[in-house]
Amino acid sequence: MAIIITAFERSPDGGKGLARDTRVRWALEEAGQPYEVRLVSFLEMKEPAHLRLHPFGQIPTYEEGDLALFETGAIVLHIAERHAGLLSDDANARARAITWMFAAVNTVEPVILELVTARILEGDKPWTKERLPLVEDRVRHRLGQLSSRLGDADWLDGAFSAGDLMMVSVLLRLRASGILGEFPKLAAYVARGEARPAYERAFAAQLAVNAGKPAAG
Amino acid sequence: MAIIITAFERSPDGGKGLARDTRVRWALEEAGQPYEVRLVSFLEMKEPAHLRLHPFGQIPTYEEGDLALFETGAIVLHIAERHAGLLSDDANARARAITWMFAAVNTVEPVILELVTARILEGDKPWTKERLPLVEDRVRHRLGQLSSRLGDADWLDGAFSAGDLMMVSVLLRLRASGILGEFPKLAAYVARGEARPAYERAFAAQLAVNAGKPAAG
Repeated sequence: MAIIITAFERSPDGGKGLARDTRVRWALEEAGQPYEVRLVSFLEMKEPAHLRLHPFGQIPTYEEGDLALFETGAIVLHIAERHAGLLSDDANARARAITWMFAAVNTVEPVILELVTARILEGDKPWTKERLPLVEDRVRHRLGQLSSRLGDADWLDGAFSAGDLMMVSVLLRLRASGILGEFPKLAAYVARGEARPAYERAFAAQLAVNAGKPAAG
Repeated sequence: MAIIITAFERSPDGGKGLARDTRVRWALEEAGQPYEVRLVSFLEMKEPAHLRLHPFGQIPTYEEGDLALFETGAIVLHIAERHAGLLSDDANARARAITWMFAAVNTVEPVILELVTARILEGDKPWTKERLPLVEDRVRHRLGQLSSRLGDADWLDGAFSAGDLMMVSVLLRLRASGILGEFPKLAAYVARGEARPAYERAFAAQLAVNAGKPAAG
């Protein structure tokens, strides 16, 4: 059954791989599953046809026969449960990998999203210069805890898993801020993720869509 | 095998049910599973013994034999996968329920957390009065989309699921702001969740811990 995902017709990041379709592409590449991509414009994302697929008017979505999903975490988990490569066969290791998926999106990503909001959506506000250090310190606090747990390990819990895929993807959004570089173990962890052939293929595929197009605003 | 969760010795909300152990208690009650609770102080949460269980120094954690988990979403999913009552037997309905779990924690909760941060952590900052309406409007935007999708249905996708458990729990955090009341369909949805006997038992259990204790600060 063909897998169809949606992605930005023109990504706001101009192809840096930060749009969330990259996470799904990466999971599909790790799982060795072919997929088709339907590109959607910002206008189309707010129209009823897309809202039926994604009630919050975002990308990516995932269609496979009569199943339609949204939310990157749920899509990656769906792929990971059906194909080898992203979750252990051991039930406990599997539950722990899913824990890291939720930690990525519910404990680490919210502070990073707040920083993105402060820098971009509120970048022109009079309070932003004074407020930004507070927001950055909340990111540093979480990253310090994550770095302590990772220690000198390659991945968060034994072999590479969907938990690492999500955590690396979330941390990638921080690179432009310079904060990731303050945590050498996490920077190396992210680099290990980016060096995986499956990530490289996913990155190249999203770049091919956006190359030569100016970043959408 | 005994299930042991952790909860605040004294909850910051004084027993309003907003601490995240309530979500896990609710899931265990829906699944009809007995559990034990180990209470931890704010000091203990930052100590090595607890950090081994929860790298971000929070509650709840979940222990069952040699399995130890953190992250409410992962714990609720673990319970839902092993017991009847929280996920459909139909594979597609199950994947959609998991989608709503991720939507709760990664699309709806981050804007709500930002509002909580603005009101509490930044409540005394000079910019907060002017900034708060922006943060509230971001919450309203998400809630409007969620309300449109829910429409007149009782639950987000057919029967009550772990997706509803997580979404109701996330929305409950908004009640004090008054914003939930602006969306009557969502307010009724939350009330339906709170009226479930399993929720009532979970709420009563956490209240019993905190009753008579002043809220922790």
